[in-house]
Amino acid sequence: MSDRPTPRHAYVAEALSIGDELLSGDTVNTNATFLGQRARALGLVLQHVATVRDRHDEIVAAVRAAAERCDVLLVSGGLGPTTDDLTTVALADAAGCAIVRDPEALARLAEKFRRFAREMPEANHKQADLPAGAQWLPNPIGTAEGFAVELGRCIAFAMPGVPRELRRMTLEQVEPRVRERLALRPIARRVYRLLGIGESAVAERVEPIVAAARARSPGLAATFIHYRAAMPEVTVILEGTRDDEGHAASPAELEALDAELVPALAPGIYGIGEADLAARVITALRAAGKRLACAESCTGGLTGALLTAVPGASECFDGGIVAYDDRIKRALLGVEPGLLAEHGAVSEPVARAMAEGARRSLGSDLAVAITGIAGPGGGTAEKPVGTVHIAVADGERTTHLRLQLRGDRGIVQRSAALWAIKLVWDRLHADGLAPIQAHEPPVLE
Amino acid sequence: MSDRPTPRHAYVAEALSIGDELLSGDTVNTNATFLGQRARALGLVLQHVATVRDRHDEIVAAVRAAAERCDVLLVSGGLGPTTDDLTTVALADAAGCAIVRDPEALARLAEKFRRFAREMPEANHKQADLPAGAQWLPNPIGTAEGFAVELGRCIAFAMPGVPRELRRMTLEQVEPRVRERLALRPIARRVYRLLGIGESAVAERVEPIVAAARARSPGLAATFIHYRAAMPEVTVILEGTRDDEGHAASPAELEALDAELVPALAPGIYGIGEADLAARVITALRAAGKRLACAESCTGGLTGALLTAVPGASECFDGGIVAYDDRIKRALLGVEPGLLAEHGAVSEPVARAMAEGARRSLGSDLAVAITGIAGPGGGTAEKPVGTVHIAVADGERTTHLRLQLRGDRGIVQRSAALWAIKLVWDRLHADGLAPIQAHEPPVLE
Repeated sequence: MSDRPTPRHAYVAEALSIGDELLSGDTVNTNATFLGQRARALGLVLQHVATVRDRHDEIVAAVRAAAERCDVLLVSGGLGPTTDDLTTVALADAAGCAIVRDPEALARLAEKFRRFAREMPEANHKQADLPAGAQWLPNPIGTAEGFAVELGRCIAFAMPGVPRELRRMTLEQVEPRVRERLALRPIARRVYRLLGIGESAVAERVEPIVAAARARSPGLAATFIHYRAAMPEVTVILEGTRDDEGHAASPAELEALDAELVPALAPGIYGIGEADLAARVITALRAAGKRLACAESCTGGLTGALLTAVPGASECFDGGIVAYDDRIKRALLGVEPGLLAEHGAVSEPVARAMAEGARRSLGSDLAVAITGIAGPGGGTAEKPVGTVHIAVADGERTTHLRLQLRGDRGIVQRSAALWAIKLVWDRLHADGLAPIQAHEPPVLE
Repeated sequence: MSDRPTPRHAYVAEALSIGDELLSGDTVNTNATFLGQRARALGLVLQHVATVRDRHDEIVAAVRAAAERCDVLLVSGGLGPTTDDLTTVALADAAGCAIVRDPEALARLAEKFRRFAREMPEANHKQADLPAGAQWLPNPIGTAEGFAVELGRCIAFAMPGVPRELRRMTLEQVEPRVRERLALRPIARRVYRLLGIGESAVAERVEPIVAAARARSPGLAATFIHYRAAMPEVTVILEGTRDDEGHAASPAELEALDAELVPALAPGIYGIGEADLAARVITALRAAGKRLACAESCTGGLTGALLTAVPGASECFDGGIVAYDDRIKRALLGVEPGLLAEHGAVSEPVARAMAEGARRSLGSDLAVAITGIAGPGGGTAEKPVGTVHIAVADGERTTHLRLQLRGDRGIVQRSAALWAIKLVWDRLHADGLAPIQAHEPPVLE
């Protein structure tokens, strides 16, 4: 289109979150993570994220500094009705324009309160204010509408801080406007997912392959590698970043590296693409028409929770038994009292018996069992905190894994649950039922 | 001490996180949350958090801007051995000093590699570099040592980005140095925890009480209120912020508001202080010598996982049955097939039967059951997505709650699990076994 600006190598975005609660350690800023994902998917480079307090001058200073550096500024929070909500005034002051009260916005707000059968407090009237010249961004699921306002070459989008409202407004209101305004070129990327290999071992295997690839083309030479370790998982991300001459790896160039990287990263690699481990296991189980059960001790239900977080889990997940107390291991999983007495609850024989018992008791095709010591108490010299036994039974054979996990209680529990799901994946993969390459297109989004 | 600086009303901190992975949406920045908590506990005001890419000039600019605004700058990330680790050079350039390689640090690093029986790669040598005049901060659990460097009136602490290394270095190395350097006065605060009242309804109840209190003393007049809504929970935080004259509410002044706020916030309020809902239920069960079981359907094990995330849960949590499939509800929980056929799995009679069945089957004192439609599929006109039934049985009586939850699958599951734990708390509270005021001191930390 003729009225679009000439494409540049990269457009730059920044995010600014407003709110004391984000600085006091009371709230994790997941909005910034979401905006980072969406910026990347759009082809914007998110170069700076800042969080400031509910203080007028601090917000104005942060907005001005950001507007000088970026093309798109994503502001969140501070659009509510209370006295500490200052975003509208601060953005108007940063843009050097007046505040106007919009009677139509006030009418929309009154209608929302009517729909919820609530009186509209006087305080909410200020949610109908916006900087002169700004455009409203509708919010169908909350009282605070957002707005878009120009700040020199930068366009700022003000959105509510409530995550579900921000997400919907980003997708429905902000992204179409950004695409219309800027001639964006999406950044190709390829995500390799691993469990069971440490980050430095992964890097040692990946680096020489990527170094050789970089010599092959200027696009590949500009490829950026990120390693992300979230115990026990490691993710490798190859990103087709654009260099100063505008070269970037194509999706096909990145995809061609699979043939070298996948064998180098076996047996830790379980997937390429955005789907996580639980989603891949659910997909594989559904495709194979097999049903899974869990028997959990130290994870207390977390394995089932991770699996059932995936939509459609009901088609392949029967349920499980959380046998936290040994009495339950005997009564509901049929673990022999002698086995518990001889080996202890945290042992290979008990893990195997739990998996086989759960499979029998729930009538499932496969069952996975986890028993371990999550800590901080309960460890011994022979079985220190972090000792975990996992078993997977499918009626034909039962596989087993002993782990020595490090970290606090929460990390041990999460690691054990993820390892358990990986052991199910391994079994499905060995039987040809779980592909590493899911049938996702090369990730362009 | 005579060599300490004169106390000011408030010392100000900022945090700067460095790393592309924090901007691409691949990693949630939990370090910023941790540093916010610790700053508050120390009596520092964290006024600004920024995240920048692994780019030298952007790091230098962010460091310089922060150093002009704050007393303490907490930098994380970019201390590794790879080419995208630029923090040391950037901090030296921001401070206007040279980089020196420290032979003693290099020897310590070599010793760490020897201990792990690994060859030290050449690339790691640069981890022995630091800005001239800076002080090392030991890292007993990783290769990257941190350092402290002066930038005018500001002291900057560079720490590794790995959360467990950053946490330990903050507590053991940074905090003692900050306390030594600044005459800090901790900020009193009081945290009220609620489930079952919406944020605006909470605000309507809290605001008049706090407004009246503000008229009583200049310290209370400076009190700051934060509301934090993380569906289905709402938290109210009263913070004894210092005004320009140095007035701040005392812990006793804040605590005195309990007598007015607790009755105004009943029956939603379940606690005052830092302990969360699951921790309070575990504490109450242990104190009462009672044992709990779960029967979960749509939450898939999450209720058990939340409860067993609390250390010591094994002393009062027996386990549970994840009856995701109706077959399991019949077989393991003894739910009558006729009940399922007549009312459907998501119904009051089935929730009650599940709770009673779990209590019987696991031999526990109490059992809580959850059955619902988490979505996105499975909803009907009569029972839309978000319909959840919860029941708590204790052998004497079974209480029940029907919920209509909003949000995506993950939010419905998390809300249902938390409501289930709240229903257990309600039962314990009604029997005098779960106090709202836990025996925590007024929160000064």
